[in-house]
Amino acid sequence: MMFRKFALAGIASTATLFATPAWADTLIDNVVGITINADGEVERFTGLVISDDGKVRELVKSGDPRPGSIDYQIDGEGRVMLPGMIDSHVHVMGIGFGQLTLDLSRTNSLEEALGAVRNFAEANPGRPWIIGRGWNQEKWGLGRFPTAAELDAVVSDRPVWLARVDGHAGWANSLAMSKANVTRASTDPNGGRIIRDPAGNPTGVFIDAAESFINAIVPEPRPSDRDVALHKAQDVLLASGITAVADMGTSVEDWQAFRRAGDHGSLKIRIMAYANDVKTMELIAGPAPTPWLYEDRLRLNGIKLYLDGALGSRGAVLKQPYHDESDHHGLALLRPAQLRNLMSRAAMDGFQTAIHAIGDAANAEVLDAISELSETYSGDRRWRIEHAQIVDPDEIVRFGQNGTIASMQPLHQTSDRLMAEARLGPDRLGGAYAWRSIAAAGAPLAFGSDAPVEPADAFAGLSVAISRTDADGEPFGGWLPGETISRDVALAGFTADGAYAGFADGRFGRLIAGERADFILVDRDPMLSSPQDIREMQVLETWIGGERVFENK
Amino acid sequence: MMFRKFALAGIASTATLFATPAWADTLIDNVVGITINADGEVERFTGLVISDDGKVRELVKSGDPRPGSIDYQIDGEGRVMLPGMIDSHVHVMGIGFGQLTLDLSRTNSLEEALGAVRNFAEANPGRPWIIGRGWNQEKWGLGRFPTAAELDAVVSDRPVWLARVDGHAGWANSLAMSKANVTRASTDPNGGRIIRDPAGNPTGVFIDAAESFINAIVPEPRPSDRDVALHKAQDVLLASGITAVADMGTSVEDWQAFRRAGDHGSLKIRIMAYANDVKTMELIAGPAPTPWLYEDRLRLNGIKLYLDGALGSRGAVLKQPYHDESDHHGLALLRPAQLRNLMSRAAMDGFQTAIHAIGDAANAEVLDAISELSETYSGDRRWRIEHAQIVDPDEIVRFGQNGTIASMQPLHQTSDRLMAEARLGPDRLGGAYAWRSIAAAGAPLAFGSDAPVEPADAFAGLSVAISRTDADGEPFGGWLPGETISRDVALAGFTADGAYAGFADGRFGRLIAGERADFILVDRDPMLSSPQDIREMQVLETWIGGERVFENK
Repeated sequence: MMFRKFALAGIASTATLFATPAWADTLIDNVVGITINADGEVERFTGLVISDDGKVRELVKSGDPRPGSIDYQIDGEGRVMLPGMIDSHVHVMGIGFGQLTLDLSRTNSLEEALGAVRNFAEANPGRPWIIGRGWNQEKWGLGRFPTAAELDAVVSDRPVWLARVDGHAGWANSLAMSKANVTRASTDPNGGRIIRDPAGNPTGVFIDAAESFINAIVPEPRPSDRDVALHKAQDVLLASGITAVADMGTSVEDWQAFRRAGDHGSLKIRIMAYANDVKTMELIAGPAPTPWLYEDRLRLNGIKLYLDGALGSRGAVLKQPYHDESDHHGLALLRPAQLRNLMSRAAMDGFQTAIHAIGDAANAEVLDAISELSETYSGDRRWRIEHAQIVDPDEIVRFGQNGTIASMQPLHQTSDRLMAEARLGPDRLGGAYAWRSIAAAGAPLAFGSDAPVEPADAFAGLSVAISRTDADGEPFGGWLPGETISRDVALAGFTADGAYAGFADGRFGRLIAGERADFILVDRDPMLSSPQDIREMQVLETWIGGERVFENK
Repeated sequence: MMFRKFALAGIASTATLFATPAWADTLIDNVVGITINADGEVERFTGLVISDDGKVRELVKSGDPRPGSIDYQIDGEGRVMLPGMIDSHVHVMGIGFGQLTLDLSRTNSLEEALGAVRNFAEANPGRPWIIGRGWNQEKWGLGRFPTAAELDAVVSDRPVWLARVDGHAGWANSLAMSKANVTRASTDPNGGRIIRDPAGNPTGVFIDAAESFINAIVPEPRPSDRDVALHKAQDVLLASGITAVADMGTSVEDWQAFRRAGDHGSLKIRIMAYANDVKTMELIAGPAPTPWLYEDRLRLNGIKLYLDGALGSRGAVLKQPYHDESDHHGLALLRPAQLRNLMSRAAMDGFQTAIHAIGDAANAEVLDAISELSETYSGDRRWRIEHAQIVDPDEIVRFGQNGTIASMQPLHQTSDRLMAEARLGPDRLGGAYAWRSIAAAGAPLAFGSDAPVEPADAFAGLSVAISRTDADGEPFGGWLPGETISRDVALAGFTADGAYAGFADGRFGRLIAGERADFILVDRDPMLSSPQDIREMQVLETWIGGERVFENK
C-alpha cells in the first residue's frame, strides 16, 4: 500500500521509539462508519486507524479527540464505511470459470439461450468444447427440460455442455452424448438421473450424479487456466465489496491455485476453504486444519458434504413426495451411516463439517447426525448446514442446538419462490427460507450467495434479507414476510457471523481493534436506505488488510 | 534464534537509525573457515558476520580489522566452519520412514536379517504389516535372492515386505503374496520381473515394476505418519551437517508434508524438490516452478524421471548384455519417445528435468535426448542426469555439452564396486563412476548420497570422492584411482555445485555475502585430514539461515 513507507517524521516524534519500532499508522477520517461490535451490536464511528500491520488500531467516535501517533491521514469525504462483506457460500473457481465460459443466467427464454450459444461458438472458434452454465428452464417458463436436439440445431460440430443455474443438472448436445457413449442402454447412476423421452432415449439433460457421464470427458482445465480463473473470480468479488468467502467444495487443484496466488503475493481475498471430499481434505491439510496462511487469507477449515440435491432439479430430499411429481422424494447422495462416518472422520481430527441439505428430510437427517455426533465430538465444532432451505417447522428449534450454524443464501429465496411453491405446494412452505425463525432458535445465520449460482451480490442479499422482495419489489410486502430479519442481523450475517461460521472471528469480519482492516467504502447507508436502494449500493473502494485492493473509477 | 532480540544498545549507537532500522548483526569469530567462493575456488576466513535476516553479511579474513556494527559476538573457539552440506540426491520421506521401519542395511547375512525381522515383529505387535528396507543379498554373499519361505519361518501371521537396499526390488513373505493375489499365473509387468523357481512359482522377490504387486496393497501412511517421518528425516540430516537436499521423486503427499512443516515454521532444512511424475508436477506447481518458499527452504524445481533400474537388480540398461546374465540387457522404464515427451512437457513450462540413468545405454539415451531437446529448449536448463554410474567412455565428453549436470553419489562406488565388476566384467569399467573424467569434460558434479539407499553422510562421500576407498581403506590405493577428484572439487560437489544443480546458486551453498548463513562447525579440517579421518569428522553445530538448528552435546 502507498502508506507503508518508513515514516521518518513519525518515528522522530514517537515516545516509544526505543521500546518497539514505530511504523506508519493511518487515520481514515470523516466517514460514516458502521460495524458489528464486540457485543454483536451495530456501532457507528467517524474514523478508523489502521496500524502498519494492516489491522484496526482503533475506531474514532464522534466527539473523540484526534488519536495520537498518526503518520498519514485520509479524508473519507463523508462516505459510508462498512466491514468488508463476507460471502459464506461461494464456489470461487466456479465464479472464475464462469467469467471464462458462456453465461446463460440472464437469458429469459430457450430461444435467447440458443442464440447465445450460437454467438459464443462463433466468437470462440478455437475452443474444442462449448462450456457454459446458468440456464434455468423455470425462469424461461419452458415447463420442461431443454433437449439435445435443440442444441444440435445451433452447434453440432463441437460438443456442448451447459450446467443448470444450480449446478445440479447439465444439458448436452448430441455430439457430447455420443463422445460420452451415452445411449438408450445407459443406466441411471445412484443419486442421478438421465432425462429420457417416452421411448427411453436420453434427451440431453443429466441430473446430479448422472452429470458425471459428460463431466468425465470434458477436458480438464490446465493449471494456468485455473490461475486465470482465480484472478477473474477475485476481481469480481473485490469489485462487489466482498473481502472474504467460504469456498464450498475445494478440490486439490483449486487449493493449489489458491496457494500459488498466495505464494506469489497475488491472493488478496480471504478464503475459508472446505474440501470436496475426505481424501482431498487429508491431502491438503493432513492431520488437522491448516494454519491461517498468508496473513489470514487462506485456511482449510474442513469438509463440504452433499446430502441431497437441489429443489429445482427435484434432487432435494423431502419428507413428503414432490407436489409436482407425486412418486418422487428426491435423491439422497449419502446414506445415514455414510454421512455419520464422514462427519466423524472430519471431526476426529478437528475439521469443521459443512453439509449441504436443502429438503426437509435432508435437514432432519443432518440435525439428527449433528445431535448424535455432538455426544462424541464435543467442544466448539460449529457444525454448518449449507442452504437449510426447506425445514420442517417443528424442527427449526433444533438449529439452536449443538452450535449448529445456518449458512443460507437470501437470493435463493427470491429466485426460488415460484419453483418452491410448485415443488412443495402451498401448504408446506412454513419452514421455507425461514431466516427469522432459525435465528430466533439461536443459530447464527451466515449469509452467502452460492455464486456463481447467484451473483456474488451481498447488497442484493441484504435487501432480500430485510424485505423478501425481488429486484422488482415483488411480491408486494414480501414473500412469507414473517421471515424477514432486522438490518442488524442481516449485516451481521454478511460480516461478523460469516467470520464466526469460518472460525475467523477475532481475525476479520468486524471493524474492531486487533482485527484485520478489511472494509469497504460505499455510496449510501444500508441501515437507512430502502431495500430497493440497498440493491443499488455502489462499492467505491475495497480494502483488505489495510491495503486498497479495488477502487471504482 | 537466541540472538534475534531487539538490540537496544546496538540501536542507540547506530548512526543509520533514522534511515533504516538497525537490527542485530552477529559475528562468529575465531573459526577456521572454509568455503567455495564466488570464483568457484576454496577460500579461507577467520570470522563470519550474520545479518539479522539470516544471511552472510561479510567474511572476516586473517588480519582484517574487526567489522563494525556488531551487536553480538560468538567465539568459535578455533573450530572449523564449512558451508552446510548439500545432498543432491535423497528421498526425504524414505529417510524418515526408514527411521520408522525395520532397517536391514547393516545386516551381514541372511540369518542376521531374519533374526532382525523376527525381533522387529515381536517388538511391534500392533503393526499390521512388517515393513523394512536395506537388505542386500550381494553383501550377504548369498549368491541368490532370498525367498518368501525363509521369511515365513520367522513371520507368517502378518504380511512382511522388505525393500532391497537400492529400492529396485522387494522381498515378501507368503502372506503378503497371498493378500496381493500373486500366483504362478501372475505375469511380469513391463519393466518388472517376478523371481520364480524352476517350476514358475514366485519365490518372494519382485523386481522394479513388479514391486507394485505388493506396494499396491501396503496400507498408505496417514498424513500424521508423514509428518513424523519428515521430522525424523530432518533430524537425521541436520545431525549429519546437511542443510539442503534435492528430493528426488516428490509425491504430492510428500509435498504437502513439506508445506505443512513450512506453514507451521518447523521446516528447517532446504528442499529442492523434483516431482515423481508430470501430473504431480502440474498439481503442485501449476504452470511454472514454484517460487522459493519459506525463506528459500522449499521449491518445486521440476521433475524426476526414471529411465532404467539399478545395476544390482540388473535393471540398469546396458549396451552389451550383463556379464553375469548373458541374455539380459536390463529393463528400460521409458521408451525413447516417452522420455522426450516427458522432458518436453517439463521444459516447455520452465521446469528442470532430472533423469535417473545408470547403465551406459541409458546414459547414452539421455545424452541423446538432452542434445535433441536443447535445440528447442534453449537457455539455462541445467539438465540433470542422476547417478550416471556406467557411461561409455567415448560418451563422457558429452557431459560437457548443453549444460548437463552429473548428479552422482560417491558412496555408491564403494558399495557397488564388486557388484559392478560382476555385472560388467573387468573390461567394461572404463566409464564406471567416472567423476574425474566427467568433471574434466566440463559437467558440474552435484554430489549426494541417495539416502536412504546409502547413509546421508557427506563426509564419507568426501572421503570416497578423493580416495575411492571404502571404510576399511579398501582397495589399497583406490578402485580405478584415476577417477578420484581433488578436495576442492569434492567440497564444491557437496556445497556450491549442489546449489547450482538446483538453481539455488546465489541463495545458499557458499559462505559469501548475500547468501543464506547455512554453515556447520566441525571438529577437523577436511582439506588437511586423511580420507579415513574425514570419515570420522564430527558435526558440532549446524546452522541454517543464521539460526542454530543442531548442536552435538
